[in-house]
This record gives sequence, structure tokens and C-alpha cells, in this order.
Amino acid sequence: MKKLINRVDDIVAEALQGMAAAHPDLVEINLEPRYLVRRGAPAAGKVALVSGGGSGHEPMHGGFVGMGMLSGACPGEVFTSPTPDQIYECTKRAHGGAGVVHIVKNYTGDVMNFEMAAELAQAEGIEVRSVVINDDVAVQDSLYTAGRRGVGATVLAEKIAGACAEDGGSLSEVADVVKEVNESARSMGMALTSCTVPSAGKPTFELGEDEMEIGIGIHGEPGRERTKLVPADRIVDRLMEPVLSDGPFKSGDRVLAFVDGMGGTPLLELYVCMRQVAAVLEDGGYRRERTLIGNYITSLEMAGLSITLLRLNDELVRLWDAPVHTPALRWGV
Amino acid sequence: MKKLINRVDDIVAEALQGMAAAHPDLVEINLEPRYLVRRGAPAAGKVALVSGGGSGHEPMHGGFVGMGMLSGACPGEVFTSPTPDQIYECTKRAHGGAGVVHIVKNYTGDVMNFEMAAELAQAEGIEVRSVVINDDVAVQDSLYTAGRRGVGATVLAEKIAGACAEDGGSLSEVADVVKEVNESARSMGMALTSCTVPSAGKPTFELGEDEMEIGIGIHGEPGRERTKLVPADRIVDRLMEPVLSDGPFKSGDRVLAFVDGMGGTPLLELYVCMRQVAAVLEDGGYRRERTLIGNYITSLEMAGLSITLLRLNDELVRLWDAPVHTPALRWGV
Repeated sequence: MKKLINRVDDIVAEALQGMAAAHPDLVEINLEPRYLVRRGAPAAGKVALVSGGGSGHEPMHGGFVGMGMLSGACPGEVFTSPTPDQIYECTKRAHGGAGVVHIVKNYTGDVMNFEMAAELAQAEGIEVRSVVINDDVAVQDSLYTAGRRGVGATVLAEKIAGACAEDGGSLSEVADVVKEVNESARSMGMALTSCTVPSAGKPTFELGEDEMEIGIGIHGEPGRERTKLVPADRIVDRLMEPVLSDGPFKSGDRVLAFVDGMGGTPLLELYVCMRQVAAVLEDGGYRRERTLIGNYITSLEMAGLSITLLRLNDELVRLWDAPVHTPALRWGV
Repeated sequence: MKKLINRVDDIVAEALQGMAAAHPDLVEINLEPRYLVRRGAPAAGKVALVSGGGSGHEPMHGGFVGMGMLSGACPGEVFTSPTPDQIYECTKRAHGGAGVVHIVKNYTGDVMNFEMAAELAQAEGIEVRSVVINDDVAVQDSLYTAGRRGVGATVLAEKIAGACAEDGGSLSEVADVVKEVNESARSMGMALTSCTVPSAGKPTFELGEDEMEIGIGIHGEPGRERTKLVPADRIVDRLMEPVLSDGPFKSGDRVLAFVDGMGGTPLLELYVCMRQVAAVLEDGGYRRERTLIGNYITSLEMAGLSITLLRLNDELVRLWDAPVHTPALRWGV
């Protein structure tokens, strides 16, 4: 296993310290239990937005803490849910008096631990609303999930709901916009290679030199099929077809297209794929009004990509375009 | 070879089309010969900033075209210099009447082809100043270079000089600030793995399961030493020591620290390294006033990192902080 790490047990804590060193103007960290909050938290009178999940998907979620996006994030060990204690403490620290929305990706451990944390917080009088993200159309149930997995829509929901909270949206309004994004978005991913979880020390799965996995999960969970490698345009087609047919999309719709690298994919290749995403949408009569491309929800050094589509309306566009200032997403400021 | 591509010969053109599709508000592309310019180029009355080099280092340079940074960029084939014709046409297209500064990384082919393009442009009455970037302290001469190689300082010079041009700086002023950044910056990189150039179809070099290469070039050129893998903190130490001792740095200096991923390095690991970069600078009495961390100058899917330090002064900080709006760097707007 070749990684730029010290001791396996220290990776997450040391990366958090690195984030604090790199972005002292944006985030504050707590090491015991581990979480990040926006600098100067809580934002008094505003709804707080807290997310979290296993580490190894950076910049998600810590890289999305800051003005106009998350109030706090709880990083678990690599590919491991954060503990109820982490989420509870982060929720308390982020709470500005107007309640807290939990954005939870649909993995069994995450859902359970966020639920326990919400109960603990509610017992202390903090109002919490939880929304589960489940946009991945690849499989119905999966290794760590009952129902669909939560992937790319998480990033979009965190940005859009963060803008709503920044605007002074109520607890219901912020929770509702997370739900709306989740219902209006669909995703699917694929991998060319596995990644290696540090504590395991070897690749999570093996793929032949001419094989790829279509519908992969962000922890390497099996997808729909393992097939021969085909040209990039055909790979994009095989992701776009189920995303478009499963989702709420119809020709003429306004959409945001999000092309996401899995961590080890050269940007050059993401742009090659972007070209075909744009072509498929244009051919189908969709109006692509916003685009996000880069590494935002990753699986360590896995090579591959995922594609997320979000159906837009005026309000979602307005919230998407609103200023954001986090380590990984920044505009308007 | 596993890559998200169609035909090897089409990668660069298709990636350019993907960039145009993703960022229509920021860039315009030309396919024959290949270059990108800022949307609405030329900016009349302003000095134009043109760079370029082999593809495979994305987002450099195309991702840095836009307001407050580059006016144009010329992508060669993967790890291959752009042709004089590309650079000449891009220079003409970007020229807004106030002259053009060429930012050239010190690789023999780049230097030669930018020189020829500058002569062609000058023959047509366009004033061109060229500045060669050579910040890499790893080796004196290298596979494709006489003298030091140009790496991370290129990104910093493009940002800072772009702000100077945006401010209405004269041709001399813009060229001089590129020189100042180059003289005030030093870099060194390392690799855990090789990358695979698409046209070669196999890794550029082989490294054993427990080996790393210290002082690697961004095309996989040999570095200072191939040694056993050591913990991340010790790797950072072995990059920081030569960077600090070769450069113009002395304790008490204000510095910008740039921790750059080679393309296949998880962000989690970059932050682990960031922690030690911050610690070394603090121990040495340096005042780290600005930080950049992420994948900005890459080597396809190579795993590894480079560290660049820039000595700051008030004017460089002002130009660094000035608004920028490109596909890969954005703030203040």
C-alpha cells in the first residue's frame, strides 16, 4: 500500500489538522470527538446544516463547510460512519437557535448514527430535521444500504440548502429544499480501478486490465455489471441512460450536470467525458443551464467518474448561484 | 491501459470541446490550431498573458484562462510542447494592443517553440515578452531541460501576473512580476506511482511496491533519488529542506505555501501533508500568510505531491488576493 500517510490510525485526525492549517479563515476543528464547523460558529438565528460520513470522499464533507454551505461536518474513519457522539457534539456546536438540518447519505450506519444523534440533540431541546439522500440509480439495495445509495446529489443539496439557510430560511424551508434536490436528482458512477482503504492495506476489489464496473458505489460496492472497457463516450451513454430514464427528467427540462471524478481520474479524462454528457443532453432536448466538473465526492484514489443530473427551476438556480465560500467550492465572494 | 478516452489521437481535442461545453461563460476554444482564449478576447488595451505546454497537467493551463489570470493557453499533445503555430495564433487572438507576455515553463521544446512564436508575432508588430519559469530545485539538468525545470511557480505567476494585467499594468510591469514570482519561488515534487501517457500505453517508469521517487519531474523525469517509502511527515521534510535552503527564504519571511497533488493523490493525503508543511514553516519562523492546496499542476494519474513556496510582499499579496474567475481558480467574483 502506497500512501502519503503517517500511522493508519492517525490519518483522519491529521488531515483535519491539515484542513485547519490550510483554511483557518473558514473552518474550526474539534479533535475529540472529531468535527469541523464554520469559523465563528454558531451563526446566531440561522438554521444550521450538518452533514458527515466516512472519510475518503474528500472534499466531501469537510471541504463544504463555510459561508453558504455546511455549518458543520463529521468525518468518520475512512469509509466508516461517524459516531452518534461526533454528530451530536457537532450539532450542538453548530446550532444557532433556529434548528439543525441533518443531510444524511443513505448508508445503514450513517442513517442509524445520525438518527441517534438527532434524538440526543432533540432531548436537549434542539430541533433537528433529517433528510436522507438516495440519488444513485445503479442498484436498489447494496452492500451497506437498503434502498438506493446517496452520492452526487449530496453535494448539490448541501450547496443549495446552505444558500437557503444563509438567506434566513426556516427549518422547514431548508429541510424541504434538501428533499426537493434529492427528488429532482439522479446519479450513477463507474470505476476503472479499485481504491485501497488504509486499514485494509489492499485493494477493495480486483478488476481485470480490460474491465470496468458500471454502477459502482463510492465504497467500491458492486454495481450493475462488470464488463469490458469501452470508449469514454459509450461509458457516458451507459450512465446517462439510466439516470435520465429513472429520474423526473423530460425533454425540455432545465438541468444542472455534475461530472465528478472518483479521485484518481485525470481532469483531462473528465473533460473528454464532459463533451459526451453535453452532447447526450443536447440531443435529448435538455437545457443544461449549470455545470459542475471536478473531484467533489471521491473514493480515495479510485479511477472513474459519476454523473449527476439535477432538474432545475428558478429558485434552485438562484440558490445554486448564491455566494459560497468553502475550501472546495467558492464563488460570488 | 485504462483510461476514460475514445481514440488516443482525439484526447486533447475532445477535452478542449469538453471545456468549452463546461465553461461557455469563461473560455472560447479554437480547434485548428488548438488553443483557448478568455471569452470575448481580446481585452482591448490590456496586456495579454499567454501560456501553454503539454497536456496532461490539467487544470494547468487551460483551467487558468479567464478574468484575472491567463488570456490564452495552448495545449500540446500529452506531455508534448505546443507547436509554434498554436502559440502564434493564440498570441494574435489574445493580443489587445498592449503587448503579450509569454509564460514558459523551462522545457527545451516549450522554450524553443515559444521563441519561434514570439518571433512570428513580433514580425507582425505584436510586442512580446517571454519569461521562463524554473522553480524546481530537484535537479540542475533533466530529461527535457537544461537548467531547472518549471513547475508550481507557474500557477502562482499566472495568477499574480494576471491580476497585474487586469489592473492595467504595462507590458514591462506584467513581465517583471512574472520574473519576480519566479525568482521568489522554489518547488520540489515526489511520486509514489508513475502515470501512463496514452500514446505510450504503459507506465512511464516503474517503482517498487515500497519505493518512491524524490524530486520527480511532472513528466516522470528522474529526480534526486529513488528510496524506500517513508511516513508522510518525513517525505514533506525531504521536500521542504531543499526548497527552503535553495530559495531566497529566511526566517521571518512572509510566504505562500502551495501543496499540489500530482493528479492521483487523494485530497485526504494532501491534507495530512499540509499539516507537516505548516509545522515545518512554523518551526522555522516563517509567516505563512497564504495557502493553496489541491490539484493544480498534475501529471495525469500520478500519485504524489509537490510543494512550492513563494516569498511574499505587500504587492504580491494584493495581486494574489485580487479577483480571479477561471475554471480552476475563482475568488472575489
